[in-house]
Amino acid sequence: MSAPSVTPKAGFNPITGAIRALAMDAVQKANSGHPGAPMGMAEIAEVLWRHHLKHNPANPNWADRDRFVLSNGHGSMLLYALLHLSGYDLSIDDLKSFRQLHSKTPGHPEHGYAPGVETTTGPLGQGIANAVGMALAERALAAQFNRPGHSVVDHYTWCFLGDGCLMEGISHEACSLAGTQSLGKLIAFYDDNGISIDGHVKGWFADDTPKRFEAYGWQVIPDVDGHDAAAIDAAIRAAKADTARPTLICCRTVIGLGSPNKAGGHDVHGAPLGAAEIEAARAHIGWTHAPFEIPADVYAAWDGRPAGKKAEEEWTARFTAYSAEHPELAAEFTRRMRGALPADFEQVVADTIAKFDGKAENIASRKASQNCIEAFAPALPELLGGSADLAGSNLTLWSGSKGISAANPGGNYLYYGVREFGMAALANGIALHGGFIPYTATFLMFSEYARNALRMAALMKVRQIFVFTHDSIGLGEDGPTHQPVEQTATLRLMPNMDVWRPCDTVESATAWASAIKRADGPTSMMFSRQNLPHVARDAATTAAIARGGYVLSEAAGKVEAVLIATGSEVSLALAAQKSLEAEGITVRVVSMPSTSVFDRQDAAWRETVLPRGVPRVAVEAGVTDLWRKYVGLEGAVVGLDHFGESAPAGELYKAFGITADAVAKAARQVLGR
Amino acid sequence: MSAPSVTPKAGFNPITGAIRALAMDAVQKANSGHPGAPMGMAEIAEVLWRHHLKHNPANPNWADRDRFVLSNGHGSMLLYALLHLSGYDLSIDDLKSFRQLHSKTPGHPEHGYAPGVETTTGPLGQGIANAVGMALAERALAAQFNRPGHSVVDHYTWCFLGDGCLMEGISHEACSLAGTQSLGKLIAFYDDNGISIDGHVKGWFADDTPKRFEAYGWQVIPDVDGHDAAAIDAAIRAAKADTARPTLICCRTVIGLGSPNKAGGHDVHGAPLGAAEIEAARAHIGWTHAPFEIPADVYAAWDGRPAGKKAEEEWTARFTAYSAEHPELAAEFTRRMRGALPADFEQVVADTIAKFDGKAENIASRKASQNCIEAFAPALPELLGGSADLAGSNLTLWSGSKGISAANPGGNYLYYGVREFGMAALANGIALHGGFIPYTATFLMFSEYARNALRMAALMKVRQIFVFTHDSIGLGEDGPTHQPVEQTATLRLMPNMDVWRPCDTVESATAWASAIKRADGPTSMMFSRQNLPHVARDAATTAAIARGGYVLSEAAGKVEAVLIATGSEVSLALAAQKSLEAEGITVRVVSMPSTSVFDRQDAAWRETVLPRGVPRVAVEAGVTDLWRKYVGLEGAVVGLDHFGESAPAGELYKAFGITADAVAKAARQVLGR
Repeated sequence: MSAPSVTPKAGFNPITGAIRALAMDAVQKANSGHPGAPMGMAEIAEVLWRHHLKHNPANPNWADRDRFVLSNGHGSMLLYALLHLSGYDLSIDDLKSFRQLHSKTPGHPEHGYAPGVETTTGPLGQGIANAVGMALAERALAAQFNRPGHSVVDHYTWCFLGDGCLMEGISHEACSLAGTQSLGKLIAFYDDNGISIDGHVKGWFADDTPKRFEAYGWQVIPDVDGHDAAAIDAAIRAAKADTARPTLICCRTVIGLGSPNKAGGHDVHGAPLGAAEIEAARAHIGWTHAPFEIPADVYAAWDGRPAGKKAEEEWTARFTAYSAEHPELAAEFTRRMRGALPADFEQVVADTIAKFDGKAENIASRKASQNCIEAFAPALPELLGGSADLAGSNLTLWSGSKGISAANPGGNYLYYGVREFGMAALANGIALHGGFIPYTATFLMFSEYARNALRMAALMKVRQIFVFTHDSIGLGEDGPTHQPVEQTATLRLMPNMDVWRPCDTVESATAWASAIKRADGPTSMMFSRQNLPHVARDAATTAAIARGGYVLSEAAGKVEAVLIATGSEVSLALAAQKSLEAEGITVRVVSMPSTSVFDRQDAAWRETVLPRGVPRVAVEAGVTDLWRKYVGLEGAVVGLDHFGESAPAGELYKAFGITADAVAKAARQVLGR
Repeated sequence: MSAPSVTPKAGFNPITGAIRALAMDAVQKANSGHPGAPMGMAEIAEVLWRHHLKHNPANPNWADRDRFVLSNGHGSMLLYALLHLSGYDLSIDDLKSFRQLHSKTPGHPEHGYAPGVETTTGPLGQGIANAVGMALAERALAAQFNRPGHSVVDHYTWCFLGDGCLMEGISHEACSLAGTQSLGKLIAFYDDNGISIDGHVKGWFADDTPKRFEAYGWQVIPDVDGHDAAAIDAAIRAAKADTARPTLICCRTVIGLGSPNKAGGHDVHGAPLGAAEIEAARAHIGWTHAPFEIPADVYAAWDGRPAGKKAEEEWTARFTAYSAEHPELAAEFTRRMRGALPADFEQVVADTIAKFDGKAENIASRKASQNCIEAFAPALPELLGGSADLAGSNLTLWSGSKGISAANPGGNYLYYGVREFGMAALANGIALHGGFIPYTATFLMFSEYARNALRMAALMKVRQIFVFTHDSIGLGEDGPTHQPVEQTATLRLMPNMDVWRPCDTVESATAWASAIKRADGPTSMMFSRQNLPHVARDAATTAAIARGGYVLSEAAGKVEAVLIATGSEVSLALAAQKSLEAEGITVRVVSMPSTSVFDRQDAAWRETVLPRGVPRVAVEAGVTDLWRKYVGLEGAVVGLDHFGESAPAGELYKAFGITADAVAKAARQVLGR
């Protein structure tokens, strides 16, 4: 509401005017959206995109492009305007359908909709975490592939962020780690406009942000006039000059600059300006064109395709020379950037499963998971592991793990520290960058700290592999704060998240293989702290694990009932099957390590496993309600619908009635016996 | 594994020796637990608990006691040792049953188990956020109740925290806000031992923590030798002397100090020391007593009861004088600290519901929620509101809202900033402190950022009221990152979390009243962005809302099927009922605003609402699987099992097939018509 407190030195011009006009007009046409950030960041964007950003609008998938992340994703019209003006395949009609169904220009930037949108942003703070991941991926990939005289990976990662991102806790996690990791090619711009939705931020956000980032080990360039092109340019040059530290460029800006009556206040943040104010703004910034009309000379000034073509051609020449000298490396680079698995991977999986089956070990599934990593990782150099300070508990290290640091940038393992949310969002960035398949780990309970980054992985169809150990009350003494009860079920409800809860080493290997092969989404795997018995299977049964649900142990006679179990409770179902058989009740045991995968099987398979009309009992050490999906109203579920307790695991199972006897009793009950 | 790098100036003595011995012995006996933090923080704890903490072990509920939070909750044996030694009702036998079923000494400190455990900790970073909330509550309560010459609220909040807490993002959110709010009576001790589970933290945590906290506006006392009692005492005095800023006392400590061979390394963090090392440690610290044996003189030195009795008696005298001069205030203070509602509250609820019913407004349920606050808050000064920077969207402000700040400490509304997790955990601390019923708000989607603090509220049985608006694809253009699809369902799976999704103003008022009256747990309320039609009801039907699920519109004839709906989809069910009736199909509409409350009703009520054997159809704009709990395998669910899209709400409902027609079709389908 107040008048701008910063007078832009450079003044308004048609180049930045195009951004402001498109943002105002698109938001107005959609009758919803956020004009404030695009208008306030127009000068910063112009300097970066026209003078520094290395990209080729004609090929948004060029491997060595700079990565740009709009962490303040509500300012999506800024990004759409930049993509359109620079010459990406995003037409003026696309901008006109901003926020409309099936358009390429949804309300927040969605990865996979418009070309050039490197990641989906909107949930605040996650964009900067993605950017940290991209910068880490770039450095790791460069260390793994560049060779003397051959630099095929060498790009910057740029990020815009606002007050909201900086208030979010994840910004602390990600930026602290970026500092510790000395990510010199990460450059972030803080849009310091003093405004958030509730108004002037000083009442709830009084941080000395430059000091905070210095505490993280960043280079901080404070007090840049975010409307002064020369000052922005100088800051960017200083940022690039410091190769040992990430840089935060703190730009004082006026939110909604160009709107003569609304700039500088929170009314311009998230609502259309209105026709009258838009008219006034047009006059104010000297923009005389109709809505969605951009003069040819402005298009020409913005067109990034000629420079982009040249830049990519130069890189292609470098890559050709690299390929000549290092053909295997070049092929491997190409394969990894494509996200294709090595040709022999299926064989590695088959060998591993056969080996695990032969060994028939009774070990914790978290240990089985570690054995899977040990088996698969030598064939998959793109696996990039890590844990949120629980390596020894999650068992995420393998014999070839090498920590990544500034001194050893080419490693394959990140010590994320106690930063679950930052870890998951960083790894989303790593996966989006390309060249890596990240696996990350924490206790299943603390998946909740990372919850929305898991969802973002699912939404963006990112291949991140979540290793969640200590998957139930079976963890014992650490008690209810650490014992997942509802987490497996709630993750099953997340669209596009595959969830596995294996019962032994062979199911664990199948789960890991499935997660690695799944190119269009993340996988959560729940592993036990406690030992689980190996189950013997014939070849067909072993192959059936990949179906998500299968007959593990057939009834000794007529299938009177079906017992469905997952993970550590499969052994209870098998024991119940035996005791029921002794009473003359013959039941089938179905192992259901992945309900999501099972649900994707054809109806015939599902009917074969769970024949209609046969009573069912499910058992899982967790909340029961979701199992009604399989057992119906007439079936039974053995589980627990309350929090756990601190005690040795065996005692808890008994105290909470999750036992083979309880399963057998439930079976008799549903059979009316 | 390395030798201690800090030589304790004060040396070992029997006072701190008792803590070390109890920690070593209890962990050893349980064969699990964390001896490192208790042993490393023994001197800090001794100075605080014996020389500064204002408490009365004989009355852990004394209103004006200092609050103590062990944010590094894995060091639970430190707290149990302190409580036992100080004279709380926690016997040596209780310590012997550390981590055993039904003991008062679970693996992490659980609120409600041992007296003196102010909050449940273990999930890192949340303890410090709880402490910030307690300090805020203390200051607000003091401002509301103290009068010239009468100080009845005047205590400190103390917090121990470690590297893990400081890496977690929530520490940023909470401590940034604590600085902005100038919480001078919050004093935290950073146990800077350089070790986390993965080893020496410097590879993943290189923050300049003093500088970081200075950036938040804290007083920082750096470089304190955490084993030097005099240095610790001086730091505490300096902390108390600064009344305008919270203080972080940075204590260099040796983890597991007292263990001659394991101190200073991560092996001492989370595992028993082993019999041999414990014997060596006993010799090292000069502790000659058998396990769980404490000499009488050591008990006497620790006994906090005489000083506690005196302190509480002094306070009681002050409170008596206050009561004489301000009898109404004193009665109100007592009521609020008891958590009792005003006598007239039921009448206020009844009047509000009658008024809303009379007005019959077709408004968004988020607006109805605001009207509820406006109606209830004048009668409930303990309501302490707030939103994570979405006041204008969540509609959490009412006409009497007054922002809380250092300048206006007695307000009733917190501008939390964009800090969802911090907000929810702070509010847990506010509720635990007593004197307030906090309500907090964000978009339903971003409940995920706060997820584990919601769970902690449920686990601790805290009365926090969560206002979650923009509850479905009905929010429209902001798109899939902002559109909840699975969140309502996942919250229903959380034990002890009540969930409401009201369909109109009257259901909204019932939900709010239920949340306020619920003294033993939190409530999540999902409110719409879009307008919802008011539904006419008779008195009995209105009263039935409080049952969670009820017959909203009876079938015009035989109940051929039951349509179950919540929130914005109730109107679809009612429309479907009408169109089916026109075809001669008579169905009942059940509104189910709260499945958790409905599930707690007696079987007769549930059978009355959902008669066995009658086919059922559920409709809700969200994931469908959990509804199988009510419709079984043979029923139908109209919903969506994928992410949303960016578009106007009406178009999304049509595009995704969540319409009255779809509900009618599903009903015909389950009836085979």
